Amino acid sequence: MNRRRRIYEGKAKILYEGPEPGTLVQHFKDDATAFNAKKHDVIDGKGVLNNRISEYIFQNLNDIGVPTHFLRRLNMREQLIREVEIIQLEVVVRNVAAGSLSTRLGIEEGTQLPRSIIEFYYKNDALGDPMVSEEHITAFGWASPQEIDDIMSLAIRVNDFLSGLFLGAGIRLVDFKMECGRLWENDMVRIVVADEISPDSCRLWDMKTNEKMDKDRFRRDLGGLVEAYSEVARRLGILTESDNPVAKSGPTLVKG
Amino acid sequence: MNRRRRIYEGKAKILYEGPEPGTLVQHFKDDATAFNAKKHDVIDGKGVLNNRISEYIFQNLNDIGVPTHFLRRLNMREQLIREVEIIQLEVVVRNVAAGSLSTRLGIEEGTQLPRSIIEFYYKNDALGDPMVSEEHITAFGWASPQEIDDIMSLAIRVNDFLSGLFLGAGIRLVDFKMECGRLWENDMVRIVVADEISPDSCRLWDMKTNEKMDKDRFRRDLGGLVEAYSEVARRLGILTESDNPVAKSGPTLVKG
Repeated sequence: MNRRRRIYEGKAKILYEGPEPGTLVQHFKDDATAFNAKKHDVIDGKGVLNNRISEYIFQNLNDIGVPTHFLRRLNMREQLIREVEIIQLEVVVRNVAAGSLSTRLGIEEGTQLPRSIIEFYYKNDALGDPMVSEEHITAFGWASPQEIDDIMSLAIRVNDFLSGLFLGAGIRLVDFKMECGRLWENDMVRIVVADEISPDSCRLWDMKTNEKMDKDRFRRDLGGLVEAYSEVARRLGILTESDNPVAKSGPTLVKG
Repeated sequence: MNRRRRIYEGKAKILYEGPEPGTLVQHFKDDATAFNAKKHDVIDGKGVLNNRISEYIFQNLNDIGVPTHFLRRLNMREQLIREVEIIQLEVVVRNVAAGSLSTRLGIEEGTQLPRSIIEFYYKNDALGDPMVSEEHITAFGWASPQEIDDIMSLAIRVNDFLSGLFLGAGIRLVDFKMECGRLWENDMVRIVVADEISPDSCRLWDMKTNEKMDKDRFRRDLGGLVEAYSEVARRLGILTESDNPVAKSGPTLVKG
């Protein structure tokens, strides 16, 4: 029986009150949604994999000095995080044309972009997360110009780290989404990376075959989502070679 | 018989080769289009009015030191302009929520914005002129960061001037679209305001009644477009009081 206070339930995660003030427990569900939740399914094992992959990425970001909300993984589906005030923007960094950028600007999927492009989307399900520019963000006070600068600096650092990490695993980082939050410490506020970074929030293509190893498998009905996420985890060294990623009970994970 | 070389024909205007190198003749048609030309009509007298209103605005911008492509009006439908390289962006300045901003961000039409907002749209009919941010503009080389700064400075100056001009005429400047071009002079290039500024490219609401005096009358099938444009011209002092704006032959204009 779960007596913890539920702070927030989103499409793929639940936030509970944490064991200490200023902390929360982030719980990864198996729900998969796309197209503003018009498409929905439950995929056994996805939450476990995303918890583990996101832990790996956030812990490594912390280690190289990119501030995040992540403290430590608690169990198969949960991690302990710092409580932050989420900035209502989805920050998308794109290295290769795909998805809405290809559609909106008429650029064929797979085209290398001239340089990485940072986009902002206003987090609002009712409006379908519309793209916005710095002008909208500052005019409506969603973030200050200084905060936008900080967010963009973080986004570039995260993109640099993830590009290298996935390159080493034979995976092309096409794009990813991140969220940021305001963290108060000693009367100071700073911007940190929040939410999750996982195959749910990245486009990851196998370097050799261009096979999709991300949520586009769900969006585009390609099947094999858990298998693809498991392969990402395996290549990052999180799953052992002997683990069976398609076991019905969900993948076995290396002891963390 | 027109022997001039036609350089470009758009939805509402034609550009002809000018009488001297570096000049063009900008001809205003009576065609009205909306929704990416899905809606089309011919409205007698519109071209004459827009030529005259745009002349008035551009001449005054030149006079206060805001550089434009405008040289002088030639006749009822034509004006002489400098040849510029059009930057493939529509620059929209918004003071009050309306149109796509209201739809995309869920802000009721008529809401005063916290401050003026500048938006950029990529000029591409096939793609429906998608909104873009500075990131897209610089990544794809549509304009340099310095040019974006220059464009935004011009946009703010034009907005300041137009807000005052229309305020004095009892008209609220809700938003407007402008285009910019690169003008070469003595091996230097500078950004100038180009295209037209008219009730086709502005949202203008009567200050007392909120009645629309702009192209929304066409977009929303409200009728009375030429009458509204004539009233704008009359309030700006371009049409004399005795002119009949609804004369079948088009409105009589004050001799320029």
